[in-house]
Amino acid sequence: MALAGNMLIAQSGGPTAAVNASLSGALKRAMKHKEIGEIYGGRNGIEGILKGNLVPLRPLFSSEADFILLKQTPAMVLGSCRKRLSETPDEEYRKILELFHQYNIKYFFYIGGNDSMDTIKKLSAWFTELGEEIYAVGIPKTIDNDIACTDHTPGFGSAARFIATSVAEIAADSEIYDLPSVTLVEIMGRNAGWLTAASALARRPGCAAPHLICMPEVPFDDERFLAQVETLQKQYRNLVVAVSEGVRYEDGRYVAAAQDRIDAFGHQQLAGAAACLAGMIRSRFGFKVRAVELNVLQRAAGHLRSETDILEACRIGAEAVTMAVRDQMTGVMASFTRVSNHPYLVRYDSARLSEVANVEKTVPPEWIDAEQMDIKPELREYLAPLITDFSEQGGVPVYFHL
Amino acid sequence: MALAGNMLIAQSGGPTAAVNASLSGALKRAMKHKEIGEIYGGRNGIEGILKGNLVPLRPLFSSEADFILLKQTPAMVLGSCRKRLSETPDEEYRKILELFHQYNIKYFFYIGGNDSMDTIKKLSAWFTELGEEIYAVGIPKTIDNDIACTDHTPGFGSAARFIATSVAEIAADSEIYDLPSVTLVEIMGRNAGWLTAASALARRPGCAAPHLICMPEVPFDDERFLAQVETLQKQYRNLVVAVSEGVRYEDGRYVAAAQDRIDAFGHQQLAGAAACLAGMIRSRFGFKVRAVELNVLQRAAGHLRSETDILEACRIGAEAVTMAVRDQMTGVMASFTRVSNHPYLVRYDSARLSEVANVEKTVPPEWIDAEQMDIKPELREYLAPLITDFSEQGGVPVYFHL
Repeated sequence: MALAGNMLIAQSGGPTAAVNASLSGALKRAMKHKEIGEIYGGRNGIEGILKGNLVPLRPLFSSEADFILLKQTPAMVLGSCRKRLSETPDEEYRKILELFHQYNIKYFFYIGGNDSMDTIKKLSAWFTELGEEIYAVGIPKTIDNDIACTDHTPGFGSAARFIATSVAEIAADSEIYDLPSVTLVEIMGRNAGWLTAASALARRPGCAAPHLICMPEVPFDDERFLAQVETLQKQYRNLVVAVSEGVRYEDGRYVAAAQDRIDAFGHQQLAGAAACLAGMIRSRFGFKVRAVELNVLQRAAGHLRSETDILEACRIGAEAVTMAVRDQMTGVMASFTRVSNHPYLVRYDSARLSEVANVEKTVPPEWIDAEQMDIKPELREYLAPLITDFSEQGGVPVYFHL
Repeated sequence: MALAGNMLIAQSGGPTAAVNASLSGALKRAMKHKEIGEIYGGRNGIEGILKGNLVPLRPLFSSEADFILLKQTPAMVLGSCRKRLSETPDEEYRKILELFHQYNIKYFFYIGGNDSMDTIKKLSAWFTELGEEIYAVGIPKTIDNDIACTDHTPGFGSAARFIATSVAEIAADSEIYDLPSVTLVEIMGRNAGWLTAASALARRPGCAAPHLICMPEVPFDDERFLAQVETLQKQYRNLVVAVSEGVRYEDGRYVAAAQDRIDAFGHQQLAGAAACLAGMIRSRFGFKVRAVELNVLQRAAGHLRSETDILEACRIGAEAVTMAVRDQMTGVMASFTRVSNHPYLVRYDSARLSEVANVEKTVPPEWIDAEQMDIKPELREYLAPLITDFSEQGGVPVYFHL
């Protein structure tokens, strides 16, 4: 018999186009579970929760349209934070537990990336140790796709769709003049190249871009890179290079750090990886170069969300609620297991948070063609089903506001 | 009785999401005019035409689907150039005329911005002077919306839609942390603020962004700007500022030029206007700041094209053909006259190229609130109907390739 009590849900880490879809799915499912009384949203993650910043969510959702609007809203309507809890239980842990008692919270859900999974792992382990009847389940979210123990993460597919689309469009833009050129597109990912790899989905008949893919998993070598540019330049007049912000040399130095600049106010400005490579190419070959940073748009572009991503994000939020309420699980993260690629099928599973937290899942070496600075077909197979489209209404998307 | 002969069409200047739509519309209409024999596309504008780089286009269009695919393809499938003809007829003029004779070109269409309208003005004036029976008509195109004698230009609406959507999404992204911040979004436009003004279409209940709009038409003043930031910061935790790349001081110096940087290779790097303002704000207030350049995406983002823009671009291309063939007009540009805003209606007209060429249409002062660094309601009324949506198929858009 499931435990009756209230629910708390919060969001943490960087925004994605799908993190509100997980909230939407969790809320809708929670409203079907009779055991759940009040449903609170924690503002600004654990940081706001520590300040008692809770908002009752039931009154905001009176119709299906509210869930749909929330589902298609990028970023985080509950706000976020970057806070980590200390390694061993301290005053903050106690404050959180006190608040849980005060609000009779029996179900706690935290939607976030690796740091957030660490937070919920620590809290759930401590609650269990104390014998508290609180069920705490993590819901994965990150554009970086770097969370362990899940086939992929909600938020990744939408960012991947934005990146692939933008690279296709930048390629079209780069080809119009009868002049050799190299366009470098900088893509997010400090340690994992999943997003940069997704740029390969821009390729199709008539579009060979990106011609090179530089990921953090492969140590960067200036001369090898320049040689590849020189070779490809003979075949293609206008090259497009997809480069992770995190590309680095064998010795660990970031390529971007090789050209630090000081601005007029004396602040150190980290030049982007793309800008650095652009300088390198201009200097060696004199080609016309351009560096384009996709910047925050790649994580915020709700208008290019992937249908698969949004549906899965919604569903994994719902499954997390059921894991806690019906299955009385705690200390776990809801996860995906890929059943097949043709047709694309996933199963909703759970993973122990002790195995998930603080592990950064990078692209496996066997899916990377390090020699050609490209991805292998297996990686394309993995990526392709994650970026299907979602039809959109209205000239500018309408978003949910709390 | 209309003149029988061949047709040449070419594209020039910077890319937009709608310039191929004008090509598509012109080709489809041309195929209905019995007077037109062969239809040639000039590769890379007047530059390619001077090299005799002509490609027969009829064989590429065998079905309605081909026209539709071309219509939704951003950038320029015929390629482009930045070439201007000399002020008085010279060897190049003669070479072009020779080629027109060789290919029996009686109808010439050039799709482009101000420089391109200058090219077709010069050629048509010279042809007329010589008594040549060649009908030359300009088809306007530019994201900048800065062409005179037309209510607006094809390409502008789609760029405006991308900008408004991106600003709405960047605003959502900027609000997630419980920290004051200022995000500066840099938008194209050296002299005209139309695109930057279009960022105002992001506003709706729940989204006050952009909180400030800095356009090149209003002399920039550091202290007035910082005072506005300080005031607004008290009302809104997370500010978004839309800024034209071309904002400049009273004395004409670009704000962006105030902080030139030298990269590691000794090249001068023009820091962006947004990056400069970000440095200024960080230095004065210590707020978290971020500069986002929308970069080439704003002119290439076919996936966010405006339905109105694409339909009008297509139709104005078609009307240009009829002006030349049926009405035997030359030395004119096809243009829009706005009939009404409610409902939105435009009429297709023609303007004398002598009045169009080399005039840069900027935003009228009476549509700008210089004091508040904002636009006036009249400008919003003008902008709103230009960015309606276009539904899209497929995870990544499929584009036409020549």
